[in-house]
Amino acid sequence: MLTTRLDTARIRAARTVIDPVFLDTPCYRCDALEPVLACAVGIKLETANPVRCFKGRGTEVIADALGSGAVVCASAGNLGQALAWSGRRRGLDVTVVAARSAPVAKLDRIRALGARLELVDGDFERAREQAADIARHHDIRLVEDSLDLETCEGAATIGLELVEQAPSADVVLIALGGGAMATGVGHVLKALAPGVEVICVQPLGAPAMTLSWRQRRVVTTESAETIADGVAGRFPIPEVLDDLLQVADDAVLAREESITTGMRLLLDHAGLVVEPSAALGVAAVLEDRERFAGRHVVTIICGSNVDPDTHRRWTSR
Amino acid sequence: MLTTRLDTARIRAARTVIDPVFLDTPCYRCDALEPVLACAVGIKLETANPVRCFKGRGTEVIADALGSGAVVCASAGNLGQALAWSGRRRGLDVTVVAARSAPVAKLDRIRALGARLELVDGDFERAREQAADIARHHDIRLVEDSLDLETCEGAATIGLELVEQAPSADVVLIALGGGAMATGVGHVLKALAPGVEVICVQPLGAPAMTLSWRQRRVVTTESAETIADGVAGRFPIPEVLDDLLQVADDAVLAREESITTGMRLLLDHAGLVVEPSAALGVAAVLEDRERFAGRHVVTIICGSNVDPDTHRRWTSR
Repeated sequence: MLTTRLDTARIRAARTVIDPVFLDTPCYRCDALEPVLACAVGIKLETANPVRCFKGRGTEVIADALGSGAVVCASAGNLGQALAWSGRRRGLDVTVVAARSAPVAKLDRIRALGARLELVDGDFERAREQAADIARHHDIRLVEDSLDLETCEGAATIGLELVEQAPSADVVLIALGGGAMATGVGHVLKALAPGVEVICVQPLGAPAMTLSWRQRRVVTTESAETIADGVAGRFPIPEVLDDLLQVADDAVLAREESITTGMRLLLDHAGLVVEPSAALGVAAVLEDRERFAGRHVVTIICGSNVDPDTHRRWTSR
Repeated sequence: MLTTRLDTARIRAARTVIDPVFLDTPCYRCDALEPVLACAVGIKLETANPVRCFKGRGTEVIADALGSGAVVCASAGNLGQALAWSGRRRGLDVTVVAARSAPVAKLDRIRALGARLELVDGDFERAREQAADIARHHDIRLVEDSLDLETCEGAATIGLELVEQAPSADVVLIALGGGAMATGVGHVLKALAPGVEVICVQPLGAPAMTLSWRQRRVVTTESAETIADGVAGRFPIPEVLDDLLQVADDAVLAREESITTGMRLLLDHAGLVVEPSAALGVAAVLEDRERFAGRHVVTIICGSNVDPDTHRRWTSR
């Protein structure tokens, strides 16, 4: 019996308030990757929408509930774009706090979508503190990725689609950062397709949530060193960890080299530009080919917001 | 009153036999391209499926009607992949005839999908002759792209989706080769959304159908010189031209330089890998910015089958 904070009926209801542009994303077998990865590869593509990532599912739920007023979030760059998009559509006053070191492409898009952008020195955890300060000081809604249920249940709608679109999946690989996508999709899979193995994948250089999952208690890290900027947190949220412990069958770590190889394979064999976080699933297969050999593995391509020149560099041989 | 060979009721019926993996593809506004192109850009993305192009829509209709037996087609590389995919699923015996000069990525995928691949010297028109010879000699079904109604009506299902997904479109830009997509989508738009301007785009180096449209009679060319291999025909089909004359508001030509610039803009600003034919819409905007300024322009991204190294070369500055 699942006792996460999430609720399958609420997740189904979330679908009704999310702009359809974020829903029913493509899910297909990518034969061309199969000889390379030695398993059947399913792609669930979350990048073909106005914010090039899955975060719009959650921000739509938030913005719909909020209706009007002001809202602030910390973001590695994708949540901020999505909140700006959902907020612009509804006339919300959106502030995004991000690290100055975030990819230029992400920061540019946040500004272009009309949000106020505050940059902080330091990493994503510093941005979280600053966003909380702003929310307190101005008494406005703070959106906390992965802690706020809307972010998890929005992401969880991916799971509802996977159950329909990939009924023969053996494994679903989910990029693990704060945990909204992993707990959301994991909850739905455990509820509706319990035979599917749910494996979370985090960069070896930013392993806080994975270490926490393994030790069944919050483990923080001093630093997060990875090109996968979208999942580079250091302070796991206890409530999210509790949920993750119920829905994840495993949490694994991938080396940077596997992430860039994954990005290159997705570009060369699937024609997909992906940001590093979105290559974590392929990276996990590269790290442990035997584990996945011959199985039907679905990987969620969660974002494609990447600086073009950096992507060229990462994917060139 | 439209009197093309196509029928909107049959197009709606086609949807019911096409594998859902090819249907209801993403359609979204790409804000990031708008400052560059000075118009509102809608993307209709036909590449997130197992054959990375729209051709599966048509081959599903063909293969469903055929049921069993053998089939042969000439292909620049995309129809062949799609027919191989649809045929494999149903146990059909598929032969594809292609030019030896077709992109390696396309030829490899045709083989990998289990079709018999025959290569001919010369261009696509030579492959057409050879496919017709094989069909006659073995008394098997010849699939003729754009002439066979299934190919047009399959492609036309894109139009049904556009009418729903992009109701505010002012213009739809359609890559023009043999004409299946242009006549199919054009038919639906003229039937259901007659206010939308239908503009076909062909490479300046392979202009046969555009010249034919302009002169209202079949014009053939001696050669076809373009990187847009998917639309490089020289012998327009009279029946297809007759339909195109009814549904296209204009047919324009794009230079090679505009095609590669379009590919680069789609990569850098939309995160999309596209083959040259799929950049023709953006190329058309680049060729005549004033015409499109401030309008809502939808471009169909019809394929992404491109050799990775060639794509890198075309899109690097």
